[in-house]
Amino acid sequence: MNERSRRIPSAPVPTKAQLLSVKRLLQKKHRETERRFVIEGWKIVEEAANAGVRFEMILYDEARAGVAPLMKKLEQTSTAMYAVSPAVLRSVSDAVTPQGIVAVLPIPSANERTFADRRGRSRIVLLEGINDPGNVGTIVRTCDWFGMDGVVIDRNSADLYQPKTVRSSMGSIFHLPVIDRADPVAVVNALRASGHTIYSAELKGSIDVADVSFAERSVIVIGSESHGVSTALSALADHRIRIPRFGKAESLNAAMACGIILSRLAMGSEQAKKTSEGKGSR
Amino acid sequence: MNERSRRIPSAPVPTKAQLLSVKRLLQKKHRETERRFVIEGWKIVEEAANAGVRFEMILYDEARAGVAPLMKKLEQTSTAMYAVSPAVLRSVSDAVTPQGIVAVLPIPSANERTFADRRGRSRIVLLEGINDPGNVGTIVRTCDWFGMDGVVIDRNSADLYQPKTVRSSMGSIFHLPVIDRADPVAVVNALRASGHTIYSAELKGSIDVADVSFAERSVIVIGSESHGVSTALSALADHRIRIPRFGKAESLNAAMACGIILSRLAMGSEQAKKTSEGKGSR
Repeated sequence: MNERSRRIPSAPVPTKAQLLSVKRLLQKKHRETERRFVIEGWKIVEEAANAGVRFEMILYDEARAGVAPLMKKLEQTSTAMYAVSPAVLRSVSDAVTPQGIVAVLPIPSANERTFADRRGRSRIVLLEGINDPGNVGTIVRTCDWFGMDGVVIDRNSADLYQPKTVRSSMGSIFHLPVIDRADPVAVVNALRASGHTIYSAELKGSIDVADVSFAERSVIVIGSESHGVSTALSALADHRIRIPRFGKAESLNAAMACGIILSRLAMGSEQAKKTSEGKGSR
Repeated sequence: MNERSRRIPSAPVPTKAQLLSVKRLLQKKHRETERRFVIEGWKIVEEAANAGVRFEMILYDEARAGVAPLMKKLEQTSTAMYAVSPAVLRSVSDAVTPQGIVAVLPIPSANERTFADRRGRSRIVLLEGINDPGNVGTIVRTCDWFGMDGVVIDRNSADLYQPKTVRSSMGSIFHLPVIDRADPVAVVNALRASGHTIYSAELKGSIDVADVSFAERSVIVIGSESHGVSTALSALADHRIRIPRFGKAESLNAAMACGIILSRLAMGSEQAKKTSEGKGSR
């Protein structure tokens, strides 16, 4: 008796080739060639479904399919859905604790025009060389919390679509547009040309973040904790902002620095505060 | 030929019992009984030495003892120092990449009186149920950056003295006093009685962080991302503050929320800004 079909003999069974095609998306090179990635867990699949994502394939453990409304919703789409055994799920998964569901979906194809062509308010965060996946995921989530309009992640940062980054973004990758694997200089030039003011976060920046009045169209450049923003990007910045230090720590974590700047950007203006009050907050 | 003495036959060699006494400090129960812990790596040992910490024992890889001034400084103390092989270092270590040096030192014995009896400005962060060691370490480091006067960590938070927390604190545990394994209600009561105003960070707090004028003597209570501040502590708070949400993320990481609040506390007042300018910032 086949391991894959043992538990749910009547349900459709994925072929070996299909399972292999999911498993290999754990590798960056396959994600990049195929522009597809994998998410794991009921909660994030639900976030993706709510955001209108088109899934290519879903594998789930029927015994743990407790989320009936979500299942119904997924079944109404044309997604290929397979009930599989926990062992099969584990075989295509990166998670230590199996999450009960795995979904394959396309990597969104945003580029600098996506942001440059937008009119009116546009607040973009650009990450340069942030190589810790947990930091990249946390930054995307914090950008979402503070209502940023987009995130740009350069080639030297951690891959947004690897499992660890996806997990730490907690579904926020489905809430705002992200350009991944970007050429940061090209992006900054395009955004400058479309009226964005460029702010780079630097340990030796010349303006305290508390004193900055952020423009309606802003790009915040965040570099790595150890190397900071590159000379090339710093030279393109209109303002170099710093977070003042009051104690003895040598640096702030890059995600932390980003969050502190975004909190000023979002809360700084009365206009921004009104927007928040209108939406409520929890 | 003995593995431990192979590389440096003339130097003093730690006994098996001594090595075992270091190794068992990887376990929480031994750290708690003996009130001793272990740090690893040249940089953090140097931070500790600069902070005037009294080491109990140091094991180091002579081949990697590149930090001559630090070695001289350490040798001038009465610390028991042993040059050992990389294999011995690895055997007492938790790090994936051996760091070349391991030091044993006492856990500082601060308690609520340490903070309550202090006069004048006193800004304390109290952590309740922050169980991720990386978050606890990052928070201590951020408290250091923003010049807080102390940190209190409750019994349900990650152990500050486990290797992962120590690593992510990046030496900041030596820059400001920390009470660990605290009874948070007892601490808050003692600090209230000594004139501290209590602020708790809550998703449904009633005051925006941007609108708070923090008192000269303040306690900021931070709860876990999933459970928030407990009802008991929330009831003791003078103010419940919130970080307004502008987008769709469900919550902010606890360390991030703490850093955003501290940035307001530290940068909020003109007085604080002047202090920072005086010290410079990098």
